[in-house]
Amino acid sequence: MPVYRVALLGFGNVGRALAQLLLLRKQDELRARYDLEVVVTGIATGRHGMALNPAGLDVRAALEMAAAGQDLSALSAEPPPTDGLDFVRRVAADVLFENTPVNYETGEPAISHLRLALERGMHAITANKGPVVHAFHELRRLAACQGRKFLFESAVMDGAPVFRLYEAALPGAQVRAFRGILNSTTNLILTRMETHGETLEQAVAYAQRIGIAETDPSGDINGWDAAIKVAALVTVFMGVPLKPQQVQRRGIRHLSRADVQAAAAQGQRWKLVCSARRRDDGTVEARVEPQRVGPESPLYGVMGTSSIVQLDTDVLGQLSLREDDPTPDATAYGLLADFLTAVRPG
Amino acid sequence: MPVYRVALLGFGNVGRALAQLLLLRKQDELRARYDLEVVVTGIATGRHGMALNPAGLDVRAALEMAAAGQDLSALSAEPPPTDGLDFVRRVAADVLFENTPVNYETGEPAISHLRLALERGMHAITANKGPVVHAFHELRRLAACQGRKFLFESAVMDGAPVFRLYEAALPGAQVRAFRGILNSTTNLILTRMETHGETLEQAVAYAQRIGIAETDPSGDINGWDAAIKVAALVTVFMGVPLKPQQVQRRGIRHLSRADVQAAAAQGQRWKLVCSARRRDDGTVEARVEPQRVGPESPLYGVMGTSSIVQLDTDVLGQLSLREDDPTPDATAYGLLADFLTAVRPG
Repeated sequence: MPVYRVALLGFGNVGRALAQLLLLRKQDELRARYDLEVVVTGIATGRHGMALNPAGLDVRAALEMAAAGQDLSALSAEPPPTDGLDFVRRVAADVLFENTPVNYETGEPAISHLRLALERGMHAITANKGPVVHAFHELRRLAACQGRKFLFESAVMDGAPVFRLYEAALPGAQVRAFRGILNSTTNLILTRMETHGETLEQAVAYAQRIGIAETDPSGDINGWDAAIKVAALVTVFMGVPLKPQQVQRRGIRHLSRADVQAAAAQGQRWKLVCSARRRDDGTVEARVEPQRVGPESPLYGVMGTSSIVQLDTDVLGQLSLREDDPTPDATAYGLLADFLTAVRPG
Repeated sequence: MPVYRVALLGFGNVGRALAQLLLLRKQDELRARYDLEVVVTGIATGRHGMALNPAGLDVRAALEMAAAGQDLSALSAEPPPTDGLDFVRRVAADVLFENTPVNYETGEPAISHLRLALERGMHAITANKGPVVHAFHELRRLAACQGRKFLFESAVMDGAPVFRLYEAALPGAQVRAFRGILNSTTNLILTRMETHGETLEQAVAYAQRIGIAETDPSGDINGWDAAIKVAALVTVFMGVPLKPQQVQRRGIRHLSRADVQAAAAQGQRWKLVCSARRRDDGTVEARVEPQRVGPESPLYGVMGTSSIVQLDTDVLGQLSLREDDPTPDATAYGLLADFLTAVRPG
């Protein structure tokens, strides 16, 4: 039975959920269904140390220490790495999971971590949108040269298989346009404004209280997170590199409770709609903006933290992929799915 | 550039749309994007003869002759085959597309055609539900032994990638349950009863007029077509062979215009809901029955000939794949997607 050595760079909520999924919840199933075994040979945290052990780290102990805020260096069989790049350079691994904090401006240092991992012959997997919008073509080319994979299913719509839908399930199809709801914080806010009659500020406070919105929610409210996701989808679905700055962007800040209620009175809803379409000259027009949608649209029923993407192709009717009420582990599942895509045959 | 020889067994609407897609609409794209070429070495019609030519048939001529109701034997470079099995035995092909009429009771003769094709070393591709519910495990095992593929994307939801979603895009996930709208004729009938105030009989007549319902619509109305699709999805998604007769089945015949209007008055809709769930003991409970659904359900907005399947897995929130307003060529696209899945690397 093949044993895959994996390295976890980033050990926050997502990295820990992945460790649990790989080594505790799904371990028996990976053996039985895919005839493979996983061992974690490196863990790097942001502020609580790093650990390497080519023979395999004790992941249960690492999870307990991380939960207790202890330094993981104590687990290392070698002198602990000094930073992320040193970690990738030294770890004995077949797969790197890159889950450091997102840098929307440059995609760094995640891009450098992923590049080095591929150069060292590892599969490079991330939940990070930055490398997709800033280095997709470079990293895919490098991966192909190395006979490895660069995968990022969890970068958009948590772990729902939006990239795999296009890359594995729609061969020979061309995406001409898409529309979707890709930012769950603003969708939750708009839902609360409709269903609970809250103001924007009250709905933001609610989203913060339940841990969906960040302390500074402006990246969601002003449509920036959505624009990055649009850029990632355009880059992959349409093969056209697009920067988030090239997405025409309007957020939901100017939407009032009265606007939301006026739409509802007419059987419609305001949604922060992400969209892109290929123009006849091959260029792409991409937007994020609040739009009123009616019940005939697949976007209409998508409430709370649910999300959807609707593809317009040259071969099928409108095809939608929708995820309702994502589980906390959805992102970790997307990383696991990328891992299996990379290592299983055919 | 590799050249794939394909055989078309069945040359009705679907077979002809496939020929146009493969050899006219998508030919340049297959060359450019997948570096492959397709040549048709055999065409078998039900009542207008069969033709073989190992060097390749003139597909344009075949399409014109078929449209004019002429016998295709005139195109054959060899004595024409005498029946479907003789066709599969003699055709020089790498891929068989099996599109003969469906036999719901036994899956024959399609199963025998597909089996022989696999034994002869061809990939076996069909839009036919019969072989999926009656011989999935046998044909998949045989395909694996032969290093070939048995694929059938178009058997459910036209060419929308419902099987590929599960098989290629959700590795490591377990399907615990699903719900969906899989019969477009009954969904169109229920839509007309709501939106046009028609009786069941009037709506059936409308569906017949526009070519959606058959002259004898009972297979749709009584839920039999839906039950076969449920059996196919259970067989593939849950790995449990299930016959259509094992699906608890109620059709829409008893639904009156008053029922539909009463639901609408309460903001709900009647839908012919297909569902299955895995019980704790590993067996599967499967049903087709009219149910009232509210706007919170992803099924609610699916109108006319659109369709949806909603998966409940162990790793994600509820995941739905929905196709709106399928194009006439969707089934042919599903066959093309199966072909590319079979022949392209990785």
